[in-house]
Amino acid sequence: MSLERVLNAGSVAIVGASKNETKRGYQAIRTLLSENYAGKIFPVNPKEKSILGLMCYPKVSEIPDPVDLALITTPAKTLPAILEDCGAKGVKGAVIIAGGFQELGKEGKKLQDTVVATAKKYAIRLIGPNTSGMMNLKINLNLVGMRDVPKGDIALLTQSGNMALTMITEAKNNSKRGFSYYVGVGNEADIHFHEYLAHFRADPDTRAVLMYVEGMRDGRAFLAEARRTTREKPIVLLKSGRSDTGRRSAGSHTGALAGMPEVAKGAYTRAGVIVLEHSDELFPVTETVSSLPPITNNAVAILADGGGHATIASDLLTDMGIKIPILHDQTQKKLREILPFAASVPNPVDVAGGGDADPSIFAECARIILEDPAVGGLLMVGLFGGYGIRFAESLAAIEEAAARNMGQLVQAVKKPMVVHSLFNSAKPPALDILKSRGITVYDSLDIACKSISALAQYGAYLNSPPQEGGLVFQWGAKATPEGKKILETARAQGRWALLEHEAMALLGAHGLPVFPAPPSQSAEEAVAAAEKIDGPVVMKIVSPDILHKSDAGGVRLNLSTAGEIRQAFEEIRANAKKFNPKAEIRGISVAPMAEPGVEIIVGTKDDDQFGPIIMFGLGGVLVEIFKDVTFRVLPLTPLGAQGMIREFKARAILDGVRGNPPVDKEAIKALLLKVSEVIESYPEIAEMDLNPVMVYEKGLHIVDARILLQEAS
Amino acid sequence: MSLERVLNAGSVAIVGASKNETKRGYQAIRTLLSENYAGKIFPVNPKEKSILGLMCYPKVSEIPDPVDLALITTPAKTLPAILEDCGAKGVKGAVIIAGGFQELGKEGKKLQDTVVATAKKYAIRLIGPNTSGMMNLKINLNLVGMRDVPKGDIALLTQSGNMALTMITEAKNNSKRGFSYYVGVGNEADIHFHEYLAHFRADPDTRAVLMYVEGMRDGRAFLAEARRTTREKPIVLLKSGRSDTGRRSAGSHTGALAGMPEVAKGAYTRAGVIVLEHSDELFPVTETVSSLPPITNNAVAILADGGGHATIASDLLTDMGIKIPILHDQTQKKLREILPFAASVPNPVDVAGGGDADPSIFAECARIILEDPAVGGLLMVGLFGGYGIRFAESLAAIEEAAARNMGQLVQAVKKPMVVHSLFNSAKPPALDILKSRGITVYDSLDIACKSISALAQYGAYLNSPPQEGGLVFQWGAKATPEGKKILETARAQGRWALLEHEAMALLGAHGLPVFPAPPSQSAEEAVAAAEKIDGPVVMKIVSPDILHKSDAGGVRLNLSTAGEIRQAFEEIRANAKKFNPKAEIRGISVAPMAEPGVEIIVGTKDDDQFGPIIMFGLGGVLVEIFKDVTFRVLPLTPLGAQGMIREFKARAILDGVRGNPPVDKEAIKALLLKVSEVIESYPEIAEMDLNPVMVYEKGLHIVDARILLQEAS
Repeated sequence: MSLERVLNAGSVAIVGASKNETKRGYQAIRTLLSENYAGKIFPVNPKEKSILGLMCYPKVSEIPDPVDLALITTPAKTLPAILEDCGAKGVKGAVIIAGGFQELGKEGKKLQDTVVATAKKYAIRLIGPNTSGMMNLKINLNLVGMRDVPKGDIALLTQSGNMALTMITEAKNNSKRGFSYYVGVGNEADIHFHEYLAHFRADPDTRAVLMYVEGMRDGRAFLAEARRTTREKPIVLLKSGRSDTGRRSAGSHTGALAGMPEVAKGAYTRAGVIVLEHSDELFPVTETVSSLPPITNNAVAILADGGGHATIASDLLTDMGIKIPILHDQTQKKLREILPFAASVPNPVDVAGGGDADPSIFAECARIILEDPAVGGLLMVGLFGGYGIRFAESLAAIEEAAARNMGQLVQAVKKPMVVHSLFNSAKPPALDILKSRGITVYDSLDIACKSISALAQYGAYLNSPPQEGGLVFQWGAKATPEGKKILETARAQGRWALLEHEAMALLGAHGLPVFPAPPSQSAEEAVAAAEKIDGPVVMKIVSPDILHKSDAGGVRLNLSTAGEIRQAFEEIRANAKKFNPKAEIRGISVAPMAEPGVEIIVGTKDDDQFGPIIMFGLGGVLVEIFKDVTFRVLPLTPLGAQGMIREFKARAILDGVRGNPPVDKEAIKALLLKVSEVIESYPEIAEMDLNPVMVYEKGLHIVDARILLQEAS
Repeated sequence: MSLERVLNAGSVAIVGASKNETKRGYQAIRTLLSENYAGKIFPVNPKEKSILGLMCYPKVSEIPDPVDLALITTPAKTLPAILEDCGAKGVKGAVIIAGGFQELGKEGKKLQDTVVATAKKYAIRLIGPNTSGMMNLKINLNLVGMRDVPKGDIALLTQSGNMALTMITEAKNNSKRGFSYYVGVGNEADIHFHEYLAHFRADPDTRAVLMYVEGMRDGRAFLAEARRTTREKPIVLLKSGRSDTGRRSAGSHTGALAGMPEVAKGAYTRAGVIVLEHSDELFPVTETVSSLPPITNNAVAILADGGGHATIASDLLTDMGIKIPILHDQTQKKLREILPFAASVPNPVDVAGGGDADPSIFAECARIILEDPAVGGLLMVGLFGGYGIRFAESLAAIEEAAARNMGQLVQAVKKPMVVHSLFNSAKPPALDILKSRGITVYDSLDIACKSISALAQYGAYLNSPPQEGGLVFQWGAKATPEGKKILETARAQGRWALLEHEAMALLGAHGLPVFPAPPSQSAEEAVAAAEKIDGPVVMKIVSPDILHKSDAGGVRLNLSTAGEIRQAFEEIRANAKKFNPKAEIRGISVAPMAEPGVEIIVGTKDDDQFGPIIMFGLGGVLVEIFKDVTFRVLPLTPLGAQGMIREFKARAILDGVRGNPPVDKEAIKALLLKVSEVIESYPEIAEMDLNPVMVYEKGLHIVDARILLQEAS
């Protein structure tokens, strides 16, 4: 359902309207009036006749005209009744300011559920609760009561009023840009992130979306919408709650479940979202990617006056994975012609005081550099804008002319230019000219570098083929009768974990190479089982009460003779009984030993934000230490599987090192896709863990498989 | 030699004095006059009689009064003659502004050497060349011509005039702090970083040192001085040239050799220096560590109004390794008593609007929180200083009173408080009050978090025992006759690499367990050698012309029978001849095979900044991928060796994993110390590489040793 009548409301009721200047119900009306909101305003308060010259109504349902949107400023407990009244009136949407819902725990969650149910009944869409409000600056619909918010083409979507205030303050103080919308998402009880995003994607006046997220309730739908949006306009996002304390803080703030940070960052990034971890970068990066062309070749030149800034910028851009190419000989030659002897021209280009007497040299250098095909964008660092301040006022006019030239240059060559200037806070006209032509200017080297690197990241994304498929599950479509039966049996027995041979059989039912060793009931049965196996065997305890078999002394490896097998059988049984006398022992399994190979691990989990996800990495101790694993949101596509195999750091191991042959990557890919298929087939599976899997030059061997089921809900 | 008469000069000659307002030789005099420099000023210019009312001298030697310092603003080529003249006059120091020396390459380096030699002859100490100058703000000795530099207690020591300007601009715009000194180190041709540092350490008016470094010429002396200094006052340092491009840029700027970044960061940090990588953080962190008490327990509390900032700050502090402890029950109870129901008190503490009507609540909360013994420092984030702006002017006075209380609180409890405020740029009086009481205030969450985390880092350093020893070599003190002979032989034969058995013998001469297998000349000799060895052997080609033996097919492993050995002998010889027909073949060595163990590598190198350093890490492919190695500046102390073994990420491997026993850490420690001893014994060794070394439960086995000698100079 479109949010058009909600975010672009033609009329607003203010429930909780007040004459008290410190109250939200007063401030909102005052702001709507002073900012000339074009629609109708209806104060609602049974105790007042009129507020700020507007007629006041006792309840929403008594307003004679149609009402699109209600701003509700009254406390949490009043909400159900007010929404009933709004429903009777046919209101399309409500902004609920009050806190006291999900973020306060169980009781609050119950109240929130009631509110959402009431809204659903009347098809009222809810913004919030626990939000600082909403603004559509295009029609002066300002429901926040914040004044002097700069207008522009950035949509601001945040889960924190403070972060909104931070972004608005920064836009006001340091840029010439502003906002088309602000939505405080609050507890995201009804309207979810992706619905707002779809609205902003369709809005011709919005050029970029700036987001602060504590936790999304439907991350999967967001990813799908983000993929569409980022092909048309950039999204810049900061996701907090990366740390335990951050998650706790987010929980107490918006009741958000933050999800796994390593999963979120990858998922957002693959959807083309520019993900940041530092709030300082949030507004500048958004401003830059929304106003300048992306960099298509990941290569940036640096233009400086003096060495320090250029050296630091070189380090930072390199850290960010940006190339700083040596300029073409012809480019260097042209630069040498106009620069003093002490200048350095390979890149970074240091004019070495060449602009002191005539700062127009910066525009000339910028042109020469940006015309070099090896250069995708230009970062100018140092003192531009300040030559008129430092040396002689007469230089200011030269700088202004140079700024105009640079503005034209960026338009003409369709390559971006970002400027770092020490003199930004002095606001010289030359820098204002740059800004009004879309060239962004920062007094921070860190932020200037991050901004231009975001243009390279976005350019690389736009060059990549659009992602197809994934994200939507065909639940159960490929379930097999055998698989269903295994899960039904476990459920019927009240178990929430499959026995290992069941897990193996389930995987086998989807065509994976497994050995679903059924438990032997006696030593002789075990010997007979081993006789059917080539090579040495492994024996393991089978008990629904013993999950960690090794800890219970329930595993024996590398057994080759009947004697060894008999002995192992007795020992395992004795160990298991000692470990847990009450354990129900189903027998002891006998399976082939895996030959040594490259160890990998594959797992699946439910993420709070995205639902089922898959993890892949090398097995072994060092990999645990370095946490070198990759993630994807399920279901997995063949391209996604290939990406996982390519992107982990130690991927060289798969190609064979120290004389070892490369391992069977196709088998890994098939394994990942089959695991995805299994998860998609049985929604009752909560978590799967194949650890380790041995991969060989040809084929692989799943050594251990663990499958946990959803807790009954 | 003390720099007192240089940095605290009582009289200055300005060589290159000018009447042209755009010239440095004019600006310097004007600034000295306008800022009331207490000493005497002597313009020097043969063409002028007087400048700015001061009598002008044709040359320095014709000035009748004593001259402490000469500021020389004339071009590079004039320097030798001018310094001769200064020498005749008995000048103590000179500031050389001109570029055109080492940073321009060979010719420039030659000129620089001449200048330094001339200065040495007359005991003139040189600042620069290629510097923006020097300021002693305590006596208004401003030789930079920059006006309105804020005075204070931070000494600024940088290798970039732009970075100095950046720091000064930031101090002026955003703080109430300033500088005691500024020194532009330039090419560091004579006075080195550590000499300036020693001066600042001794200066009672300097409370902290802020440094920007492109490359140090005597990093070792700096480390020694830094260790002394950081016990008394903090040093904050940004070292650029971490990337290849950064190194190239630094080279063209100050001719600096940047050294290995991974070595520098560790070495500085262990000397107590706070090392930063983002220039945005440089001034704020210095300001914070110089004005607030350090945090002694690495634990910080966060006080916020609303969730977003607190959540982001939690993530950032966690990234920085800071603990955010749950507050004591009593602390939480006290907070609950004064805060609204929606507030969150475990930490982060969110007052949830509790300050909207009365912002004095922040001071009360700060007191309650800082009195909790689990809390080492407080980070307040959000809107403080802005309540008077946002809500009602009357709140401003309450905020000011609260700010005064917080100032007293920090003094009383001796714990620091850093403030993030969105309203910092509006400069409300409440924030000015905080700043003038030493509580630092930033509008960036990133910088506020980094600043308070630096207090924790510095506190941990001050709690650690002082480092003893190291840094100074007793060259040759422990050299053995056998070792000397091996090196002499190699030299006499014109070789710059030892043969492997020579390298082994050299290590053996210092008591390391080695098998210096002499080359066998025939298959039978090889068989005879193998007979003396227990277990299988390895055979390797011995040739000064074949360094990478495996590439030449010159290695055969795991040989057990006479037949295998004969065959290997012939094959290796044939392979080597095929690989390089001109290779001089000295024979084929026979040595015991190493049993499998934990692979480690140990190496030494010459670092541009610090001279000989040692590297240690696990061997193997994964470790190469993850670059998990540690470094120390040689010579190594026992504590240093222990530190190396403890601090690399995969150290758990040494403790034994997956059922393996722990390996012999004492043997590793002894190996590291012996390697250090070898390097200290023979200055002719340039580089050593022991790769791999197998370590066992007891003892170790050096499998391969490579030793390279210094190129003849």
